[in-house]
Amino acid sequence: MTQPALRFAEAHRVDNLDHLIEFLRIPSISTTPEYRSEVERAANWLVARMREIGFSRVEAVPTEGCPIVYGEWLGAGPNAPTLLIYGHYDVQPTDPDDEWVSPPFSPTIRDGNLYARGASDNKGQHYTHLAAAEAFFRAEGVPPVNLKFVIEGEEEVGSNSLGPFIRQHADMLACDAALISDTAMLNAKTPKIVYGVRGIVYTEMEVRGPMHDLHSGAYGGVAHNPLQVAVEMLAALHDDQGRVAIPGFYDRVRPLTDDERAELRRIPFDEEALRREMGAPALWSGEAGYTPLERISVRPTLEIHGIRGGFVGEGQKTVIPARVVAKVSMRLVPDQDPKEIARLFEKRIHDLAPPTVEVEVRVLSDADPALIDRDAPAMQAAVQAYHQGFGAEPIFLREGGTLPVVAMFNKILQVPVIMMGFGLPDDNLHAPNEKFSLDNFYRGINTSIHFMRGLASQE
Amino acid sequence: MTQPALRFAEAHRVDNLDHLIEFLRIPSISTTPEYRSEVERAANWLVARMREIGFSRVEAVPTEGCPIVYGEWLGAGPNAPTLLIYGHYDVQPTDPDDEWVSPPFSPTIRDGNLYARGASDNKGQHYTHLAAAEAFFRAEGVPPVNLKFVIEGEEEVGSNSLGPFIRQHADMLACDAALISDTAMLNAKTPKIVYGVRGIVYTEMEVRGPMHDLHSGAYGGVAHNPLQVAVEMLAALHDDQGRVAIPGFYDRVRPLTDDERAELRRIPFDEEALRREMGAPALWSGEAGYTPLERISVRPTLEIHGIRGGFVGEGQKTVIPARVVAKVSMRLVPDQDPKEIARLFEKRIHDLAPPTVEVEVRVLSDADPALIDRDAPAMQAAVQAYHQGFGAEPIFLREGGTLPVVAMFNKILQVPVIMMGFGLPDDNLHAPNEKFSLDNFYRGINTSIHFMRGLASQE
Repeated sequence: MTQPALRFAEAHRVDNLDHLIEFLRIPSISTTPEYRSEVERAANWLVARMREIGFSRVEAVPTEGCPIVYGEWLGAGPNAPTLLIYGHYDVQPTDPDDEWVSPPFSPTIRDGNLYARGASDNKGQHYTHLAAAEAFFRAEGVPPVNLKFVIEGEEEVGSNSLGPFIRQHADMLACDAALISDTAMLNAKTPKIVYGVRGIVYTEMEVRGPMHDLHSGAYGGVAHNPLQVAVEMLAALHDDQGRVAIPGFYDRVRPLTDDERAELRRIPFDEEALRREMGAPALWSGEAGYTPLERISVRPTLEIHGIRGGFVGEGQKTVIPARVVAKVSMRLVPDQDPKEIARLFEKRIHDLAPPTVEVEVRVLSDADPALIDRDAPAMQAAVQAYHQGFGAEPIFLREGGTLPVVAMFNKILQVPVIMMGFGLPDDNLHAPNEKFSLDNFYRGINTSIHFMRGLASQE
Repeated sequence: MTQPALRFAEAHRVDNLDHLIEFLRIPSISTTPEYRSEVERAANWLVARMREIGFSRVEAVPTEGCPIVYGEWLGAGPNAPTLLIYGHYDVQPTDPDDEWVSPPFSPTIRDGNLYARGASDNKGQHYTHLAAAEAFFRAEGVPPVNLKFVIEGEEEVGSNSLGPFIRQHADMLACDAALISDTAMLNAKTPKIVYGVRGIVYTEMEVRGPMHDLHSGAYGGVAHNPLQVAVEMLAALHDDQGRVAIPGFYDRVRPLTDDERAELRRIPFDEEALRREMGAPALWSGEAGYTPLERISVRPTLEIHGIRGGFVGEGQKTVIPARVVAKVSMRLVPDQDPKEIARLFEKRIHDLAPPTVEVEVRVLSDADPALIDRDAPAMQAAVQAYHQGFGAEPIFLREGGTLPVVAMFNKILQVPVIMMGFGLPDDNLHAPNEKFSLDNFYRGINTSIHFMRGLASQE
């Protein structure tokens, strides 16, 4: 702890926390239009903060959706490596609100954790790198590497503007490595470097039957209830082996090699702990022939997220709804192609639909899966940084979540994408009582400082 | 048209319409607690109106739920027959509100119809009998029969207080016949007397998986998504022949005789007209081996009314919900017993549930099916009254809807229950743009006057 930047970060823990709390107070929910002005406010907050830190060029770039905040500092010169850091300032909705112990946008510290929507996903995590940069600027005058930050506001709605932005500004974004902190560690003591993420296709399936809602007493028996049609169609999307029952769905899935399976088996994985963490009566056996860890990381899945239509309020209504909309997503693995999977899904839905209804499939977003080369030098810098920041060897793992940006950086910018997460598995992402460990926040800042320094010394 | 009561009703059409409109302005929705004070207001409105008309004893009887309005006039004397008339002053919810052409509680006349929630179901229909009574009081001094009115406020939530009320006050309610106008005519020219109604069991099925909502990226593949479990269980409630797939469900269904089926075939029934009325691409083939008319009237059915859980808002949320609640009802026919069917349903749900979830079944309400003796003298008075009021022979039909009160009156008071409806098939019950034909409103008042007079002259 003799380096000035590290000493600065250590001495300014309270300042860093205060800034993060201010950031978390902004309800920048991107999934519904009514929070649009708050999303803008979060972008503006970032722009102001980054100017204050010392970036030479900072702007909120307008898109068709939410602005992308871009900040760069190239003062390390053309011979120093350039690091591109990604984050997202938008957050998930907060419902069910009554399950939050403290309000989602009133950041609250309990038991060494900071509770707030976005604490771990992703404001707290990407703020570590801003704090690291600030420590270099304040304590050492300049960071050891050139820095480019891309912080988007549409990650929770599929990152629709990010692809065009990266493609349009590929020269501006040119770099030697990309860094993303939007994943979790294995546990509080074991860091984890994610080198693969699943892709996704998020769809809405609409089933339309009668022109208007009908009374089940008068029409029950002759009206094909769109809810019944929908549940029968949705039930047909898995077979009795837990496999996704869409013809062609698995055709491009890269088979697991024996080596990969052996390596996965070496990863400490406690099924009972996972069950307790979920609080479910039992783990689902899922796709036959694969272990739980394989199923949540390297195998594709299909999930139903909600079914709208009919009456779900208190009490009773004997309605046959005119239409039903189900939200269904599929997580994809290399080499599944989201566009192709969307077409196969749509075909399957149309094949399943009886002649008593009309069906429609809408694709709301998609993202490619990605696999990163584990032998890239930046990966080694990350391993070293974790050693210094957390005193532990990180494990390498492919993960089940989707970070659309990973495949974009990897494919368009042709750089290794380092997923260096500081979250924990029980951070309640997308759920009530999201939190971020304060210890991980401070260690994350230190790890980022080590990583920047390590990357510089490789050249 | 020489009788004073008929002449009075004819001369006071506007007054009768004004009173009905006033009644319809009260949003007496019984399905959600927030309208409770409006439900009370509707009860009080009825009490005041009935006192004004001339009933000797009128009261809003408190219950555990909504008050039952009781009014009687026994001035015709012990030798005259006593007619018990039933109605309900509560109404269905109005959602989806944006589909109403005029607001549901601002009664509006368009094309000879009065549009309002409750216009046909049931304020407009039972008000015909109050207007008939008023015509007798004003024009002839006294009605020709003793009158007892029971107008409840919980029909749309299962009539839970009505059974206890009838059993407790069986002496007070003693009568020679019961009259209910809560059904529709076959079409504008053909009246219909319903002599059988289906029963119902209305349930909620809850599926609980994880303790809290989960992120599908992190847990997809090991968490058994309660939505997936629910759709698979719900899909298993019908077999591929359209039959309800609950063991024992059909055991007590009284088989249709050849005579009954032959009679049903004689009823004019236009499948294509029904399809157009529903606005669906095609009729559902439903339970194999039965005609559409049989399926909507004399055969039992099972319907899903709504599925709550997960995310159904605008946009995307990759959630695996902790719990899902589905509303499911079953329409029952003689001699199915609602309590037994509820037990069979609950057993089926528990048998279908995988070990990865907990399930719970709640019965929200039930009602017996009923069949009325078509040879009762009061039935003949009803046929005659329709002839006089509508100039047409009514058809006799069993119907698919549920009127819990029919079985109660029939079983407890041991009287024939005459279901003399003035609604039309396209009245949009339980849907946006509910309406009541003004012509049927005025003819209904006349028909009620004829019926009361006819009943009196039979003795």
